[in-house]
Amino acid sequence: MFSFFPVAFWQTGVPSSGTDLAHDQLFLWIALSIGVVGLLAAFFFARSVLGSDTGSPEMRRISDAIRQGAEAFMKRQYSTIALIALGLAVVLYIGYRLSPLTAPFANKVVISFLIGATCSALSGQTGMWVSIRANIRTAAAARTSLGKALQLALHGGAVTGLVVVGLSLIGIGLLFLAFGGLHDPRQAPYQLVGFGFGASLVALFAQLGGGIYTKAADVGADLVGKVEAGIPEDDPRNPAVIADLVGDNVGDCAGRGADIFESTAAENVGAMILGAALYPVFGLKGILFPLIVQAINIVASILGVSVVRSGEDEDPMHALNRGYYVTTLLALAGFAAAIYFMLGARWWLLGSGICGIATSFLFVRITEYYTETRFRPVRNIALASTTGPATNIIQGLAVGMETPAIPVIVICAALLLSYYFGVRGLADVTTINAYAKGIYGTAIATMGMLSSAAYILAMDTFGPITDNAGGIIEMSEQPESVREKTDKLDAAGNTTKALTKGYAIGSASLAAFLLFSAYLATIHDIVAQRVTASGGVMPPTWTFSNVNLASVPVFAGALLGAMLTYLFSSLAIKAVGRAAQTVIEDVHAQFRDNPGIMQGTAHPDYGRCVRIVTTAALKEMVLPGILAVGMPLAVGLIFRYFGAEYNPTNFTNHPMIDGHPVNLSGAEAVAALLMVGTISGILLAMLMNNGGGAWDNAKKYIETGAHGGKRSEAHKAAVVGDTVGDPFKDTAGPSLHVLIKLLATVTLVLAPLFL
Amino acid sequence: MFSFFPVAFWQTGVPSSGTDLAHDQLFLWIALSIGVVGLLAAFFFARSVLGSDTGSPEMRRISDAIRQGAEAFMKRQYSTIALIALGLAVVLYIGYRLSPLTAPFANKVVISFLIGATCSALSGQTGMWVSIRANIRTAAAARTSLGKALQLALHGGAVTGLVVVGLSLIGIGLLFLAFGGLHDPRQAPYQLVGFGFGASLVALFAQLGGGIYTKAADVGADLVGKVEAGIPEDDPRNPAVIADLVGDNVGDCAGRGADIFESTAAENVGAMILGAALYPVFGLKGILFPLIVQAINIVASILGVSVVRSGEDEDPMHALNRGYYVTTLLALAGFAAAIYFMLGARWWLLGSGICGIATSFLFVRITEYYTETRFRPVRNIALASTTGPATNIIQGLAVGMETPAIPVIVICAALLLSYYFGVRGLADVTTINAYAKGIYGTAIATMGMLSSAAYILAMDTFGPITDNAGGIIEMSEQPESVREKTDKLDAAGNTTKALTKGYAIGSASLAAFLLFSAYLATIHDIVAQRVTASGGVMPPTWTFSNVNLASVPVFAGALLGAMLTYLFSSLAIKAVGRAAQTVIEDVHAQFRDNPGIMQGTAHPDYGRCVRIVTTAALKEMVLPGILAVGMPLAVGLIFRYFGAEYNPTNFTNHPMIDGHPVNLSGAEAVAALLMVGTISGILLAMLMNNGGGAWDNAKKYIETGAHGGKRSEAHKAAVVGDTVGDPFKDTAGPSLHVLIKLLATVTLVLAPLFL
Repeated sequence: MFSFFPVAFWQTGVPSSGTDLAHDQLFLWIALSIGVVGLLAAFFFARSVLGSDTGSPEMRRISDAIRQGAEAFMKRQYSTIALIALGLAVVLYIGYRLSPLTAPFANKVVISFLIGATCSALSGQTGMWVSIRANIRTAAAARTSLGKALQLALHGGAVTGLVVVGLSLIGIGLLFLAFGGLHDPRQAPYQLVGFGFGASLVALFAQLGGGIYTKAADVGADLVGKVEAGIPEDDPRNPAVIADLVGDNVGDCAGRGADIFESTAAENVGAMILGAALYPVFGLKGILFPLIVQAINIVASILGVSVVRSGEDEDPMHALNRGYYVTTLLALAGFAAAIYFMLGARWWLLGSGICGIATSFLFVRITEYYTETRFRPVRNIALASTTGPATNIIQGLAVGMETPAIPVIVICAALLLSYYFGVRGLADVTTINAYAKGIYGTAIATMGMLSSAAYILAMDTFGPITDNAGGIIEMSEQPESVREKTDKLDAAGNTTKALTKGYAIGSASLAAFLLFSAYLATIHDIVAQRVTASGGVMPPTWTFSNVNLASVPVFAGALLGAMLTYLFSSLAIKAVGRAAQTVIEDVHAQFRDNPGIMQGTAHPDYGRCVRIVTTAALKEMVLPGILAVGMPLAVGLIFRYFGAEYNPTNFTNHPMIDGHPVNLSGAEAVAALLMVGTISGILLAMLMNNGGGAWDNAKKYIETGAHGGKRSEAHKAAVVGDTVGDPFKDTAGPSLHVLIKLLATVTLVLAPLFL
Repeated sequence: MFSFFPVAFWQTGVPSSGTDLAHDQLFLWIALSIGVVGLLAAFFFARSVLGSDTGSPEMRRISDAIRQGAEAFMKRQYSTIALIALGLAVVLYIGYRLSPLTAPFANKVVISFLIGATCSALSGQTGMWVSIRANIRTAAAARTSLGKALQLALHGGAVTGLVVVGLSLIGIGLLFLAFGGLHDPRQAPYQLVGFGFGASLVALFAQLGGGIYTKAADVGADLVGKVEAGIPEDDPRNPAVIADLVGDNVGDCAGRGADIFESTAAENVGAMILGAALYPVFGLKGILFPLIVQAINIVASILGVSVVRSGEDEDPMHALNRGYYVTTLLALAGFAAAIYFMLGARWWLLGSGICGIATSFLFVRITEYYTETRFRPVRNIALASTTGPATNIIQGLAVGMETPAIPVIVICAALLLSYYFGVRGLADVTTINAYAKGIYGTAIATMGMLSSAAYILAMDTFGPITDNAGGIIEMSEQPESVREKTDKLDAAGNTTKALTKGYAIGSASLAAFLLFSAYLATIHDIVAQRVTASGGVMPPTWTFSNVNLASVPVFAGALLGAMLTYLFSSLAIKAVGRAAQTVIEDVHAQFRDNPGIMQGTAHPDYGRCVRIVTTAALKEMVLPGILAVGMPLAVGLIFRYFGAEYNPTNFTNHPMIDGHPVNLSGAEAVAALLMVGTISGILLAMLMNNGGGAWDNAKKYIETGAHGGKRSEAHKAAVVGDTVGDPFKDTAGPSLHVLIKLLATVTLVLAPLFL
């Protein structure tokens, strides 16, 4: 039977099975219980938020409009995504049924795919559900207390964080149980790959659709409002203003929620696959370790969120950072405990975990350096704005292209060190080879990085909540003192949004390596099964760990993978432009047909604008999304069927069936596409996220009075940079994070079709 | 003895040596003779250009100023480059002397390095020498005849093209002779790697220094001239105007000359190494084949240039294209003849050659599509300009990111087809394996692509000559009818410059694959030699053809390679900004200190501006240049010394010395750096070249009257895009071409140090 289980790839000796399943399954129940605790905590946070004051009727009117717009978008968006997901489920099912070797797994893969997709959709929607209710309450609280408002916004964010991590933990844990994980623990993790793919697929469309929506509405509202009509941002006369506020929710909350959900899901599945390979060493405990780390994440984040309190005059970032440090320290302590109880107190492995935690910390700090007004990069862009928009753009792009340098070195160092610690930590183990030990080290680093995910996500969702709160205050024309409070919160929210993007790309980079190894192991295993099933020759020393870059299909796959990231970004950016155009046209039409709007005597039709941008964004998200799924599939199939000519020619150490070498071109080309696409995607995403963030803050820096302040020529130039950065940092960049992880999960799931 | 000769890597059988050296060396003499013919033809073209009318004294005054500025820059630039090259020669010599295995080759490698560097420098300088003399004569001819002016400019360009290809051919041919190619033909090509490295090193600094110079002067002159002072382009009152015209020469002529020199050199060396591996099949003829193709290139290009004649009303591009078609057809015929006489009439191999020629043709056409005003991409950017600079920039970047898509598919198709044709063409050969046959097919495709290089380079140099001619006409205030003629030529020159950039990146992409194979073969050979010399175990089935992307050092190398291209681009772009700042400050100072300049009563000090931008550009070129050479070296050495921990763990099929596995981490990490750096560099260069070209022409399109024409808001927005595109397409993009090839040659030369 086909087992998805790569013995030769990872192991040097015969697997042992002397662990106590009855005892070790305790860890699964602990993890699941804490997952439920996380959801309960989310419920209590949500209840406390919902119980707060909802402000004046005027504020409620605005908030209701935002809520209705967001809900209408989400409903249509998830209907579209559901259709696409169901279509893919059918394709997947048929693909798996076609071969007798994969047919027995078709049901399990498709079920876990659908459950992953559903959980991912639920994560995004719950987050948004709370967020569009927390905004008004934060606004209302800001009328009396900054500290109270900050707490409300963060508690709203915590709901997202806890639901995302909790659902990921419970979903994977229950599937593991359902797939017989307690009876055949080494088999079950491989059948979870569908879960990761489902999660990524929904995340991709959620992020793409939301990202296109938010920036189309933003750019559209700004171009007709601020530039043409000369009215301020968030002015109630602008028909696109509600669409803009809706966008903050659907883009940032729902998008990032699904993004981090798939990060944890993909990383958990990858680490559990690896844990299965290390079964001879740790038994069931090694497979359950990633789930326990997520449980620690939940506990640490609940406590971290709870300690955040802020004085009325304190910078809100200080309070948020305190919570982050508390979470990190608790996660570290929990990590140490888990290593003690589950991994036989191998303290070198704690070193690997610290590598991940340190990477997370450094990525946040580096992102700060490149995007905050205190530091040189943003200052230089602001200075370049004094000579006009061209120099602002040149400087911004140069900063963007510089940003990957240090993070790349950090990732390399983290991988090298955690690998080394893994080898040292498992030095006494003889049943697995050094490579598996090292990879396990990098997997633990990835877990370390994700061990504060729930808190990070809470900080992230804090962003759109405070942004919306500011908009509600602005539109309901509250006194200046209240605005000052929400401006402070809004500034902190912008910072947290930028930092979490750095965190997301960092975790994607670390996880990429783990998932790539899982792909290679899976291919190896499938080849071994097929060759054995056909009575072919499987040389004992052969491994599918070497992807030959000098082979033409591999080079082609690598080129195509890198090209995919560029084309995908181009499509995403152009989609924003086209969707923004529809907004502009509608606003023009409303101004023309109803002159009372600009005079303030008539209300604009906010809903029409919301509907129009909804339709446009959903239409635009399809092409880049299909490209992302279709390209690996196309490359794999083309080289599967036409790639035999390009096989390696040294067949003395190659799997053979009936005297013919197994054609690996398809699997190899896809491996290269995955790897080089990931690398290119990481760098492009950093360029766009950090470049966009730096442009944004250069404008804000000038607005504080530098280089002539608002209405100066420098400010005009900086606005150009900020507008260019918008689709970079809020559409293409974040969508690339998701693309990277989707590539990893789609290739894992489709692997059997490439051979 | 150390042989650089990878028997196991390429060959399946025992090499034969039954070819007639005495007879086949005839081809070397033919190639060398045609090389001399090429130089002679260049001499005659130059003489006919120099014999033409030099116009009015006013025109000569301007031209002399340009010439002096260019010569002063070149002198200082090449002094700096010479120092860097000598320093590297010492490092190289010491590095090679350190190991007893490489020590015998130290002299040859260093000598070929120095000769390659010298020839590259000569190529760049000769081209410029003619170009700064052809500009005034073209301008003078334009006063009477467009057709005559076009011919003069093209003949000036032909001098560059022929000198570049001729010097490359003669340099390599003579070194091959000197290194005993006629006695031991299989050994000599490996010792030529120094030639390619020398050529690339000089090309990198020539392109970087020239590219920074040209854009710093251009941006600086525009910002104070057009934007601040409101005077037209090329106005004699602008102190930076001569520096701007000098820049066109040092950036485009000298830079691209060295770039194409390096392309032909690197490709020739790579193809000769492969020819040496195929010695059992073709004997000496296979090694000399690339040189004969260059000889065909020379003959075809001389004839192609000679047929170009243009009527007074014809679009100059038509005439230039006619010449290109003639050259291509002649090259194809010559290719067929060479295959008949040298490769045993294996017509499938002609198919490989046609792949290369078709790739060249398609790249030129795709570049046209993305950068010419007739087509949708430029029209869309122009349309986006109507809503301001931000949308212009967004649209331009989106177009730039879209541009790699089709070229990448073309490259993949060309590689796959030419590989397949190679396998078919050599199907009857049993002494080499299918991989070597396929790679030879791709090598022939690369030769096909480069078989019209001299003509392409002539078209490229046509650009700065006509640009300068236009500037001279403008500054000497000639009548409108003359300006119209030079405007036509200038427009054609802009097109040819864009097209040749497409060509250059296409040839770099094809050659990359060939050079990567050469690197792997070299590493394989060095390992085999070392293991044998130390009495170790060399498994017969082991090849260094598999670079394991799942190994941490390889992943790190790949990440660092991609990051290098981003950081390098960022440094190049920022260098332009800083150097432009010095120009702006000087112009401000001149206007302030001498108010007569703006009133037209006093001449500005053009020379001071030229000196300032010279100093700035030379200072700025050092850091990115050192990064390009230093990073592969650093990665290779770090993993050589610290990478043993990360070795693969399956040692059943691994070279061993004294029971320890040979540490390949350094060589593997560098291989990944080379490959992924190349892929990332190709895509980034396409983004920047085509994006920059499209912005440029969107502005020109608006200037023809679209969207409100000159002085409209759309035009202002388009000027922003054009300015952003300048350092993209003239500094960072072309420098990336050179970086890609430098990475290939530097890794070949340094390979022995990584083990």
